[in-house]
Amino acid sequence: MTNPSWKTAVHKKRQDQLASIPSAWRLSQSAIESAPPNALDTIRSCGLLSPQEIEWTETTDIQVLLSKLASGEITSLQLTTAFSKRAAIAQQTTKCLTEIFFEQALARAKELDNILQTTGKVTGPLHGLPVSVKDRFQIEGMDTTVGWVGLVNKPAERSCSIVQLLESMGAVLYVKTNIPQSLMMSDSYNHVFGQSVNAFNSQLISGGSSGGEGALVGARGSPLGIGTDIGGSIRIPANLQGLYSICPTTGRVPWDCSFLSTVEYFMQALLDSEPWDVDPGCIPIPWRKEVAALPTRKLRLGVVFDDGVVKPQPPVARALREVVEKLRLAGHEVVEWDTSLHVKGTNLWTKAILSDGGQHCKDLCDVIGEPLIEGMIVGTPSDELTIKEREKLEEEKWAFQESFAKQWKQAGIDAILMPTSPWVGFKPKEWVQSKQWIGYTGLWNFLNYAGMTVPVAKADFTLDQPDQEWLEHTPRNESDAYNHQQYDIGLVQGMHICVQIVGGRFGEEKAVSVAKVLDTILPHA
Amino acid sequence: MTNPSWKTAVHKKRQDQLASIPSAWRLSQSAIESAPPNALDTIRSCGLLSPQEIEWTETTDIQVLLSKLASGEITSLQLTTAFSKRAAIAQQTTKCLTEIFFEQALARAKELDNILQTTGKVTGPLHGLPVSVKDRFQIEGMDTTVGWVGLVNKPAERSCSIVQLLESMGAVLYVKTNIPQSLMMSDSYNHVFGQSVNAFNSQLISGGSSGGEGALVGARGSPLGIGTDIGGSIRIPANLQGLYSICPTTGRVPWDCSFLSTVEYFMQALLDSEPWDVDPGCIPIPWRKEVAALPTRKLRLGVVFDDGVVKPQPPVARALREVVEKLRLAGHEVVEWDTSLHVKGTNLWTKAILSDGGQHCKDLCDVIGEPLIEGMIVGTPSDELTIKEREKLEEEKWAFQESFAKQWKQAGIDAILMPTSPWVGFKPKEWVQSKQWIGYTGLWNFLNYAGMTVPVAKADFTLDQPDQEWLEHTPRNESDAYNHQQYDIGLVQGMHICVQIVGGRFGEEKAVSVAKVLDTILPHA
Repeated sequence: MTNPSWKTAVHKKRQDQLASIPSAWRLSQSAIESAPPNALDTIRSCGLLSPQEIEWTETTDIQVLLSKLASGEITSLQLTTAFSKRAAIAQQTTKCLTEIFFEQALARAKELDNILQTTGKVTGPLHGLPVSVKDRFQIEGMDTTVGWVGLVNKPAERSCSIVQLLESMGAVLYVKTNIPQSLMMSDSYNHVFGQSVNAFNSQLISGGSSGGEGALVGARGSPLGIGTDIGGSIRIPANLQGLYSICPTTGRVPWDCSFLSTVEYFMQALLDSEPWDVDPGCIPIPWRKEVAALPTRKLRLGVVFDDGVVKPQPPVARALREVVEKLRLAGHEVVEWDTSLHVKGTNLWTKAILSDGGQHCKDLCDVIGEPLIEGMIVGTPSDELTIKEREKLEEEKWAFQESFAKQWKQAGIDAILMPTSPWVGFKPKEWVQSKQWIGYTGLWNFLNYAGMTVPVAKADFTLDQPDQEWLEHTPRNESDAYNHQQYDIGLVQGMHICVQIVGGRFGEEKAVSVAKVLDTILPHA
Repeated sequence: MTNPSWKTAVHKKRQDQLASIPSAWRLSQSAIESAPPNALDTIRSCGLLSPQEIEWTETTDIQVLLSKLASGEITSLQLTTAFSKRAAIAQQTTKCLTEIFFEQALARAKELDNILQTTGKVTGPLHGLPVSVKDRFQIEGMDTTVGWVGLVNKPAERSCSIVQLLESMGAVLYVKTNIPQSLMMSDSYNHVFGQSVNAFNSQLISGGSSGGEGALVGARGSPLGIGTDIGGSIRIPANLQGLYSICPTTGRVPWDCSFLSTVEYFMQALLDSEPWDVDPGCIPIPWRKEVAALPTRKLRLGVVFDDGVVKPQPPVARALREVVEKLRLAGHEVVEWDTSLHVKGTNLWTKAILSDGGQHCKDLCDVIGEPLIEGMIVGTPSDELTIKEREKLEEEKWAFQESFAKQWKQAGIDAILMPTSPWVGFKPKEWVQSKQWIGYTGLWNFLNYAGMTVPVAKADFTLDQPDQEWLEHTPRNESDAYNHQQYDIGLVQGMHICVQIVGGRFGEEKAVSVAKVLDTILPHA
């Protein structure tokens, strides 16, 4: 029996990928097999990074790194080398990467160093900083497989606009990051690059669809990662790896990082570069500093403890309760948000997502006879909508958005606080059995409201034992039942929990201002 | 033989429409039949308006009217009465209206007067001002037929967001205005409300699709009209009636008026009302005063004299040449814009517009067996695109927008000046034979670039005789041939010519700033 051709293509691609990691940066097979669950332990102890390189890469505020780069205290070559090493180890323990191009990145870093040395001037607001991008952005000369075997060895003719912008801002691109086949699941695995796992626990998934990005940034293999989010794809991996992230209203760029001030610095730097001159989808709204500032007045916030569909697991519920208590103690007003519109909105979102009846995925499978991964949020022929049905859906969407905007305005809130997902951790390939409820994030994509994740707690063996309420909970539906039975504090002990701040339409600055309030009342992890 | 049911419905609707005009404001049948071509002559001479009412309604700057309303110098009841009378006469001579609700408007005006008298405060920035809207905006309790017989007697359950906003700003709505069946032609006639004609020459059309709006504002029967524009629907009627108008990037509201300062006042007042809180399609960009200000430096402008598809008729070409000469004399730089991308863009726009294969129109005809008007820009079954083809078109659109943005940025221009349309006037029902080239406006809709019209000249029997170049022109295609053979200076003598200022994506303020420059160098009509 011969291998199907797609397996041959995968084999070759993986060999190429491995070859792109210098042999000096490779771990032995036994080191990989016996690696501790937390990728950071391997990174810190394997001896490949100098203490200084560890210090640099664990500096979570990019402004500190950028000022060292600008002053010449470190060179871009040094910093790119450090992050490349770290990304290489993270890849070997978490499978977080797809395209790897360290050589090209180091050459670019040298070039930037030379420019700084000869002119005394930095190249843009990200001068010399390594930045990672999710493998759905085109970089000239690289594959953009998006996890499809049929797209292997089809290098992009030109870089997409966000990549062009990052480069014009002085960033050094060095890796692209792993995603699920089709992007439509919260577990990042595909036939080309395999299973990405969590940076903090290799037993658990890194989330999706920007799961590789989440694991890489979580492992501090990248100071700043650019993703996409049409249902939770940035926020869910950020949630699982304890990262700040922002999923803005369409027209502003989504991404994640590990420190709040990075969110603001990058957003402002990006918008200062006037991306709307280059990218036809980009909206010319500069960063509104005054809205993003730490508010001088008390906030009025909505809170969703439970959306009525899937009950959040104990650590998620406890973390949110603690945040709300602290906010109230600090004098802020927190009111329960009426979720009666949420199910309708999420169902409309799902309908839209499935509306091509799975045709797009089928076509991509057919390129090389690759099988479809079962259990993703991908339509079947019965989900396909005719053009008329799509138009009707657009009308329903519009009416829904109007109703929701009305509720929001009448409530007079600054933002909504809620879980990012009702679960804490899944083992690989379990999410696909979970009946796919991502209403905690997908609703906001449907509404086009900005959402942020903010790390607030870790699952705790003592605090998060199932309580009476949890034990007595009667599942409302299959998703709820799965989420309920799957909870195991032993499995998720120590894992990160983020709250989600929903800032409304074009509410990026508002969400950041609320995050700043949380920052003042929460102890830092 | 019985009348088809759609004719019966039309007969009834027209009776209702006539009944909504008070008998005191009706012209005799003979007065209508012997009316001079220019509606303003009839309005001024028919004796229905007092000299003061004529003075008020011919005040083209709404800020003057608004300050008189605010100070109590005139009441909203007086002003609404004056504009209602004028609209009633304009309707009888140009068929510019659809829904007429003077009684309701006068009651609302009284209410606003009372509020001002008792509280001393105005209700919003448009307090007491009559405002007309195109008959595709829903007003609670009124029909929105959009010219379809099948939609007669289906009153809207609620007002759409722009109507809600106008009312919250203190506007008094009193009429809706005529459009073509399907909105997809530059001649506003339909079976329900008949043929709208030009305010300045009843032999000629008022344009479309906001043709009734153009004729009404042109006749000074409204100080401010709200329309829509997906291919030139605001700009073409404004062009034909010598009006200022603005077709903004999606997310800001299109409309027309008769004075430049009205453009800025209304845009700012509208955006100050934060419409994005109510309307999910609205982008939260406030009016950027500093961009809209009269520039202190010299401009660099692109100019398109001829898009290479349809050669503009002599008055259009002459008016644009004059503008360019004056700009150069004033020290501004004007460079020829390379139009090589224009045909591709317009063809993609057309493909998108026709992509439903005419199904939407067919469905609306089928409601009551109404025939489709031939020659509109409406698809046939062979134009229908599958979902995949639509996705491909979206990709092509994106790539096209990127290329165009690049050309724009590299050219370093502030704006482009060009004709709004290559023709000056058509007799009714001629446009449908003209092969529908609306590339001078439609391209900018496809790119989502803001465009404005600015009245600059009138067709002149002496200046605009066909010159050698015109006479020797070899038609390039059917549209060009029709446009060439149809030109008759005798027919269009004295008609208005506007230039179009294209300000780029979200370039509303930029377009206004360029219009201000034109204002300083052109004599006023």
